Amino acid sequence: MSNTYGSIFRITTFGESHGTAVGVIVDGCPAGLPITIEEIQAALDRRRPGQSKITTPRDEKDQVQILSGIFNGQTQGTPIALAVFNKDQASHDYTHIEKAYRPSHADYTYTAKYGSRDHRGGGRSSARETLARVAAGVLAQKFLALQGIQITSYVSQVGSIYAPADYTQLDLSQVDNTIVRCPHPETAQAMIQLIEETRDKLDTVGGVVSCVIKGVPAGLGEPVFDKLHAELGKAMLSINAVKGFEYGSGFEGVSMYGSQHNDVFYTDEDGQVKTRTNHSGGIQGGISNGQDIYFKVAFKPVATILQPQSSIDQSGQEITLQGKGRHDPCVLPRAVPIVDAMAALVLADFVLRQRANKVD
Amino acid sequence: MSNTYGSIFRITTFGESHGTAVGVIVDGCPAGLPITIEEIQAALDRRRPGQSKITTPRDEKDQVQILSGIFNGQTQGTPIALAVFNKDQASHDYTHIEKAYRPSHADYTYTAKYGSRDHRGGGRSSARETLARVAAGVLAQKFLALQGIQITSYVSQVGSIYAPADYTQLDLSQVDNTIVRCPHPETAQAMIQLIEETRDKLDTVGGVVSCVIKGVPAGLGEPVFDKLHAELGKAMLSINAVKGFEYGSGFEGVSMYGSQHNDVFYTDEDGQVKTRTNHSGGIQGGISNGQDIYFKVAFKPVATILQPQSSIDQSGQEITLQGKGRHDPCVLPRAVPIVDAMAALVLADFVLRQRANKVD
Amino acid sequence: MSNTYGSIFRITTFGESHGTAVGVIVDGCPAGLPITIEEIQAALDRRRPGQSKITTPRDEKDQVQILSGIFNGQTQGTPIALAVFNKDQASHDYTHIEKAYRPSHADYTYTAKYGSRDHRGGGRSSARETLARVAAGVLAQKFLALQGIQITSYVSQVGSIYAPADYTQLDLSQVDNTIVRCPHPETAQAMIQLIEETRDKLDTVGGVVSCVIKGVPAGLGEPVFDKLHAELGKAMLSINAVKGFEYGSGFEGVSMYGSQHNDVFYTDEDGQVKTRTNHSGGIQGGISNGQDIYFKVAFKPVATILQPQSSIDQSGQEITLQGKGRHDPCVLPRAVPIVDAMAALVLADFVLRQRANKVD
Amino acid sequence: MSNTYGSIFRITTFGESHGTAVGVIVDGCPAGLPITIEEIQAALDRRRPGQSKITTPRDEKDQVQILSGIFNGQTQGTPIALAVFNKDQASHDYTHIEKAYRPSHADYTYTAKYGSRDHRGGGRSSARETLARVAAGVLAQKFLALQGIQITSYVSQVGSIYAPADYTQLDLSQVDNTIVRCPHPETAQAMIQLIEETRDKLDTVGGVVSCVIKGVPAGLGEPVFDKLHAELGKAMLSINAVKGFEYGSGFEGVSMYGSQHNDVFYTDEDGQVKTRTNHSGGIQGGISNGQDIYFKVAFKPVATILQPQSSIDQSGQEITLQGKGRHDPCVLPRAVPIVDAMAALVLADFVLRQRANKVD
Repeated sequence: MSNTYGSIFRITTFGESHGTAVGVIVDGCPAGLPITIEEIQAALDRRRPGQSKITTPRDEKDQVQILSGIFNGQTQGTPIALAVFNKDQASHDYTHIEKAYRPSHADYTYTAKYGSRDHRGGGRSSARETLARVAAGVLAQKFLALQGIQITSYVSQVGSIYAPADYTQLDLSQVDNTIVRCPHPETAQAMIQLIEETRDKLDTVGGVVSCVIKGVPAGLGEPVFDKLHAELGKAMLSINAVKGFEYGSGFEGVSMYGSQHNDVFYTDEDGQVKTRTNHSGGIQGGISNGQDIYFKVAFKPVATILQPQSSIDQSGQEITLQGKGRHDPCVLPRAVPIVDAMAALVLADFVLRQRANKVD
Repeated sequence: MSNTYGSIFRITTFGESHGTAVGVIVDGCPAGLPITIEEIQAALDRRRPGQSKITTPRDEKDQVQILSGIFNGQTQGTPIALAVFNKDQASHDYTHIEKAYRPSHADYTYTAKYGSRDHRGGGRSSARETLARVAAGVLAQKFLALQGIQITSYVSQVGSIYAPADYTQLDLSQVDNTIVRCPHPETAQAMIQLIEETRDKLDTVGGVVSCVIKGVPAGLGEPVFDKLHAELGKAMLSINAVKGFEYGSGFEGVSMYGSQHNDVFYTDEDGQVKTRTNHSGGIQGGISNGQDIYFKVAFKPVATILQPQSSIDQSGQEITLQGKGRHDPCVLPRAVPIVDAMAALVLADFVLRQRANKVD
Repeated sequence: MSNTYGSIFRITTFGESHGTAVGVIVDGCPAGLPITIEEIQAALDRRRPGQSKITTPRDEKDQVQILSGIFNGQTQGTPIALAVFNKDQASHDYTHIEKAYRPSHADYTYTAKYGSRDHRGGGRSSARETLARVAAGVLAQKFLALQGIQITSYVSQVGSIYAPADYTQLDLSQVDNTIVRCPHPETAQAMIQLIEETRDKLDTVGGVVSCVIKGVPAGLGEPVFDKLHAELGKAMLSINAVKGFEYGSGFEGVSMYGSQHNDVFYTDEDGQVKTRTNHSGGIQGGISNGQDIYFKVAFKPVATILQPQSSIDQSGQEITLQGKGRHDPCVLPRAVPIVDAMAALVLADFVLRQRANKVD
Repeated sequence: MSNTYGSIFRITTFGESHGTAVGVIVDGCPAGLPITIEEIQAALDRRRPGQSKITTPRDEKDQVQILSGIFNGQTQGTPIALAVFNKDQASHDYTHIEKAYRPSHADYTYTAKYGSRDHRGGGRSSARETLARVAAGVLAQKFLALQGIQITSYVSQVGSIYAPADYTQLDLSQVDNTIVRCPHPETAQAMIQLIEETRDKLDTVGGVVSCVIKGVPAGLGEPVFDKLHAELGKAMLSINAVKGFEYGSGFEGVSMYGSQHNDVFYTDEDGQVKTRTNHSGGIQGGISNGQDIYFKVAFKPVATILQPQSSIDQSGQEITLQGKGRHDPCVLPRAVPIVDAMAALVLADFVLRQRANKVD
């Protein structure tokens, strides 16, 4: 198990889907950061089940508690423990999957790895763990705001429906204006319709979250291994259901020529170093160059579908599984705050690491 | 700086493009692994400049030395230091880029980060650093071979020319049969032609390396943060010029429905758990499931082009840069052993970490 | 802040003396370890205040809760979160020390470090944090017991009163037979008397905890930096009030000649490699040699005394502080389970690390 | 194996006593630090064999090479590789100990751990590895000098001969005035005489190195686990032959009362916070308080003696070993620069870590 992420600004999460609590210890958050429980709760509310008609109808409040590290409304430099106690975890019936290996879930792999598993609601492999990341991410986002760094994630694709590729043509302040969290209104409507149709067919669908980070100073990232985009990639790939990551020109950039792809430097009227294009996605040699950082994260369709599926149980016998309960037909809208949080954790860590790179 | 990668099987690289030496310390390689200097040299020869007509004509031999850790033909559990001393580093003339920021290189970002940089040949940001990874990767590959794990990378795309997407239809033993390292002969010929045309136009072109890993037992990977694909992603994204990573169904999987995407389990005639499809890419919940692992890595076109380009210098003045010297028109053929090496380092680390996950 | 200890078997603690809760996440405890909440509680009861007439009369029950990671009576390989919620933390009055720097406490240094501090009961610097270590240590001790490794700590000195130096002449099963946790009955009585006299003088006194570890196989420890005794030393020195650590012959060994100090090897009747003396304390070159490991840990007298003391406040003004409340005149009896726990955490980590050191 | 030390300012050493080279990668040394090869060589010369009549007569020059990371006389933020190539390693004859387990050496434990060992001169367990630490330590010392932090180690005890305990009564600028590196001239003469007598008896003797660190600002150290003294302790205990560590009042402090031991704060005429005594050794709650830091390190007598000793070989057969070659009768004089180096590495790391602890 590796439940810790980050080098200086570091989180360690705990909790199973239907255990007593899910939570996080944030260690290394600088002292003196003002924070309220309401700010943390607001971020959790963006992630919580039951927030709209296109998410799972499970209406979980996910009330966060602060167990340590915050005193007089400020961080103290000491570890900050946050927890959400699960409600009614005993009331669910998961005996039907106790010995089953659900297709494209982690039932089989956890059992292979550990010899046993907590089968209730996916146990530790449940995306419920990500609420801990979202809670911790609020601290990182508040710290970054003090540095002038803003992170905006949004749903850019659901199934085959996608928003205009160029984020500079979108109004990123509008992300939360639609329940699908796509800032392009027409695309958002089509996405919502697709998700509803998919849900009505008892099926699920995937999509893409795009993220734009503005205000990053040149110099963040720690080559040769902890390149800025390499850590962003790892952080994103560690989110449940993620299958791919690309930044800047990404996979499309491979079919360009160098003469097209290179970003030409110039000095603007304020004496700032800029590039005329930004195929680099704001990162060169693994270090931010001061331009906008942007990247995409691919999410597969949710594995739990309400249709009968063939599978096997622990003894290897073939079985038929019938999904039941209330599940998301598409995780994308709820994934947006998770991408925000993980991006913030990565950036906050690099801001702090950069402080050690020069003699004074 | 972060020049260390890995948790148990861990490498730390050093060296600038035109410094005294480039090398690596491998710490945590298990004792008792037979290894010869010839095996390490052979891997370096797959990466070295000047190996074919489509790579840079710089003919560097890159002779490796073993400085520690290997005794009587075996690893001892002690740190293994490997180094390649640079030849003729003084003879190059890099004064023309001493104060210039080359487009889409790391000149500007390193200077922003550290206040100065070794400008000779890109200094630490040069891909020459990857020879250290390739050397270390040989140890990981030898260790994995003992576990029955084989890694095969190949060039699947150059510019807009790509090999058949389904790797099971390729003969992976043929990778080194063409100088472009694409195991599909017709595609390989087209790729070579494209690279030669690109070079003749004084330009460069990108591409994709695909990787297939066979023989991985179920159970490798350390959720929730060090998921197998998250570490593979980070390792690949840490390679120079990489812009994207996807595994299994990847970005294409987002437009599938759950009912299509789910991989149905079955038990084969030998009692082995298998899946009928493999959109999961051999990884579920961040843990290997025993099926083939496969992923793709996107490389941008090389930034150094032999055409004049506009840029700025350290004082912010606009300049015109004229690339010179001998450079790769396409890094893909030489990237194959680097992807092999990084994949091996990731897998070797997870094999060792898995030993600690059960009571006995 | 660094609130994480361990490499594979790793704990992260949180909580202030008078915050909401104190607790720990144990990450990397192997799956399949049977554990009950009663076992964890029993260890906490050995550490808790109010357990005897020579500890603080504060009668805190310190009831532990399991928040995650244990299912069906066994560890699951997932992170184990344990917490003790503080009772009545609001009822204490600490305004008299809000701006004061108590002598030989961490009030001044925490303020210098972080710019502010939670002054209530010492905040994060309180030894109350060690209950998290004790809780986590139970898991390590249970794991070690499966390997045949037993750890026994005891009070060997209080003030100037000490037990016979040679632990082989003590009955280590008798540690908990006296409230001072010294297995030598006559010495124990003298220690208790000294502690009571010291308390009556409104003063405090220091002492030494000795620790003996039996059943350690040869081969544990990770040179050159994570030598077995170096990690034991760090772990012990990280406990509140510890001022020194020595193992084997320790400081006395410096005045010996090599010809006296060397431990001669022999093979016993069972073919086991043994040494005729054990000045090495069971560790050679930082690796266990199969003989008993033993070491000593020096604890200074508790800084909180119920006498008036001169000091300064945050503005630098001289003040007189009058200690109040209920405090330990001597921490030694309660330190024993903490030393046990930290020793167990170190050993468990090395047992797991050793699994990765050979090819098979 | 764990051959890396440090969190931000981090070293990784390599090399066996009689392998090709011994060296180190320093990663995380801030950019912009001026450094010359002569400064590194000077530190190595303080550690080298053959430097005086009371060290081993082996006259090894230990010429250091810089392989990377230093350009134009300054660190670049990139990894700094330093190496000393061994001379004449083939010429020694170690066949007599190839299968023997020398008493109180690491021959047996390395074999138990790894299944084999490089027996030549102790292989990796040789104190020759510490030259890599000394070389790296120069960078840390130069960085600390910029912060106004000075480290002075000296020999305070050899066998039963010791210098006055109170370091404030010694002239610490006189350490290198005697070959034994004790700044108290009369004691130094007695120590030298004892070492010579011991050598003539074909024996060895231990001792104590004391270390004083001045100019440390309040605020360094990272509780609760990486307390300043805990890291100092680990660093010192990781040096070959070290058996104990104590700081401030140390083991003697245990027999003091709290009312004696507490260090009373006051504000001096310059408005500086000070303490009237310094039993705390400059560290409270694991964090520096601005007073002098001081600690002691116990070294056992060298295990290699030139007398016949009984032992066993790998097959368990009893043998008689006759030490031969040229060895140190007492390591203390040569241990001084090693203690300096490790202390510097610890402090430099904490200076850099402290930069991340506050919001701005």
